[in-house]
Amino acid sequence: MSSAKTMSNTSAPARLLQVRGYSYAYRRFGNGSGLPLLFLQHFTGTLDSWDPAVTDPLATGREVILFDNAGVGRSTGDVPQTIAEMAGHAMAFLDGLGVETCDVMGYSLGGMVALQMAQDRPSIFRRLILVGTAPRGGEDIMHLEKPSLAKRIQDPTNQGYDVLKKIFFTSSPASQGAAEAFVRRIMERKDDRDPPAGPKIANAQMAAFREWEELKGERFAELKAIHHSTLVVNGVYDEMIPVSNSYRLSENLGNAALLTYPDAGHGSLFQYPASFTRHATAFLTSDSESAAF
Amino acid sequence: MSSAKTMSNTSAPARLLQVRGYSYAYRRFGNGSGLPLLFLQHFTGTLDSWDPAVTDPLATGREVILFDNAGVGRSTGDVPQTIAEMAGHAMAFLDGLGVETCDVMGYSLGGMVALQMAQDRPSIFRRLILVGTAPRGGEDIMHLEKPSLAKRIQDPTNQGYDVLKKIFFTSSPASQGAAEAFVRRIMERKDDRDPPAGPKIANAQMAAFREWEELKGERFAELKAIHHSTLVVNGVYDEMIPVSNSYRLSENLGNAALLTYPDAGHGSLFQYPASFTRHATAFLTSDSESAAF
Repeated sequence: MSSAKTMSNTSAPARLLQVRGYSYAYRRFGNGSGLPLLFLQHFTGTLDSWDPAVTDPLATGREVILFDNAGVGRSTGDVPQTIAEMAGHAMAFLDGLGVETCDVMGYSLGGMVALQMAQDRPSIFRRLILVGTAPRGGEDIMHLEKPSLAKRIQDPTNQGYDVLKKIFFTSSPASQGAAEAFVRRIMERKDDRDPPAGPKIANAQMAAFREWEELKGERFAELKAIHHSTLVVNGVYDEMIPVSNSYRLSENLGNAALLTYPDAGHGSLFQYPASFTRHATAFLTSDSESAAF
Repeated sequence: MSSAKTMSNTSAPARLLQVRGYSYAYRRFGNGSGLPLLFLQHFTGTLDSWDPAVTDPLATGREVILFDNAGVGRSTGDVPQTIAEMAGHAMAFLDGLGVETCDVMGYSLGGMVALQMAQDRPSIFRRLILVGTAPRGGEDIMHLEKPSLAKRIQDPTNQGYDVLKKIFFTSSPASQGAAEAFVRRIMERKDDRDPPAGPKIANAQMAAFREWEELKGERFAELKAIHHSTLVVNGVYDEMIPVSNSYRLSENLGNAALLTYPDAGHGSLFQYPASFTRHATAFLTSDSESAAF
């Protein structure tokens, strides 16, 4: 396999890392002078849910590390029912890889895990990118049972990735066109794919969302203690994790810039991958102490 | 005067344009293939309140046009007590210049004028940049009498531009350092300066803010009718026009991206001029139909 081929999430091989009795599945590709960038995935997502149009441009300046948390994809163990336990697995994985400090791209569920890691062990991260996610005690986090989402998820004419097109994107022709292109990209890889997540994974992760919605102590106090440079990104019409959660993140984190995308839902980074990766690159390569980039 | 010298707001000459019995003061400098960029100014601001670190980099790809609305600086006439009348003056000025379509950078009061112009004559603008501003019926717009602002404005130890340092920036050392640099830049020009605004201008513009706060019809309905690509920018800790107004703009305008800056108040564009002008340039030079840039 050529080097160019292994620089993409359409072709980089999955690997397994044994740590403390767990076997964690991951892909690691790209190179450059930047710190490695850890990707933490969304609800029911696997290595193969990462859009190569997002991972591959970022892999041209640094290694990207895609990671299946415990019990997801080809990683062993039970799926934790709390964000804190997921954060523990991600830190054990990085320890096992020998990565002391990296940047992180946390998307949705993965953004919550990134926040928890930054809180539990600040030195593990330099810069954070948080897309479509929410702080502890956030608002209306992943209530798939609410009518606006349930009708699309339960529509029997929406099969497989068709559901993602309906819930990650808006109904505009432009957004639905971007949805088609996104699904084509994540279906491009034919071999070495993770098994799709079933109800057991979904139920455990949903329990973790419910626990994360619970307030513990003063609202957002833990955010004020996170001083990492952070870029917060959200689609302005996100129905899965509303944009108000990104407002609260950028207002309460110690050092965070916010970018919101027009005509976009939960999958804003997949709708505008060229823009997203350009901004993410500018943010990650900035040498300012400020998150302004 | 060399061409390089006339490419800066520290040295470009003020000019006067006679239209319909008014004499409007303006500066026009820069060049490039982009549409001209009209700058619409904040409360009590004049041509000399525009930071050369913001105007000059933008003038390398297009002409920038700085404009004193009626009764401000060296422009004649009474200062209007409504945004709608200010918009009428700005359109008459562009008509007089022979500019049929331009881009606009509306800051604070100037952003409201830009919104009104986009509503009244959509063809006047291609793209909008709106910094630290608010929609009609917005929240907590320029209440200088509230204690958090009044104590800084009325502090007798804050003379002249010291007040701007206190109300456009946060109290952090980094923001106050940026404030010092900003004031040095806008004081750099020694000749051909506008007279500073007095209480008569302030009172009329304050009346316009109060009128703009009044709801007319369904809240934000007029924003949904504005389909121009728009970049909304705000400091996350703006006490003069809170960031919630920028949230409502980006949520309700037809096609708007939002960028908020950390550790920044009303003067976010002057605190981070390199970042702001880089993003503004990327936005203005994008050929996408989307405001995502």
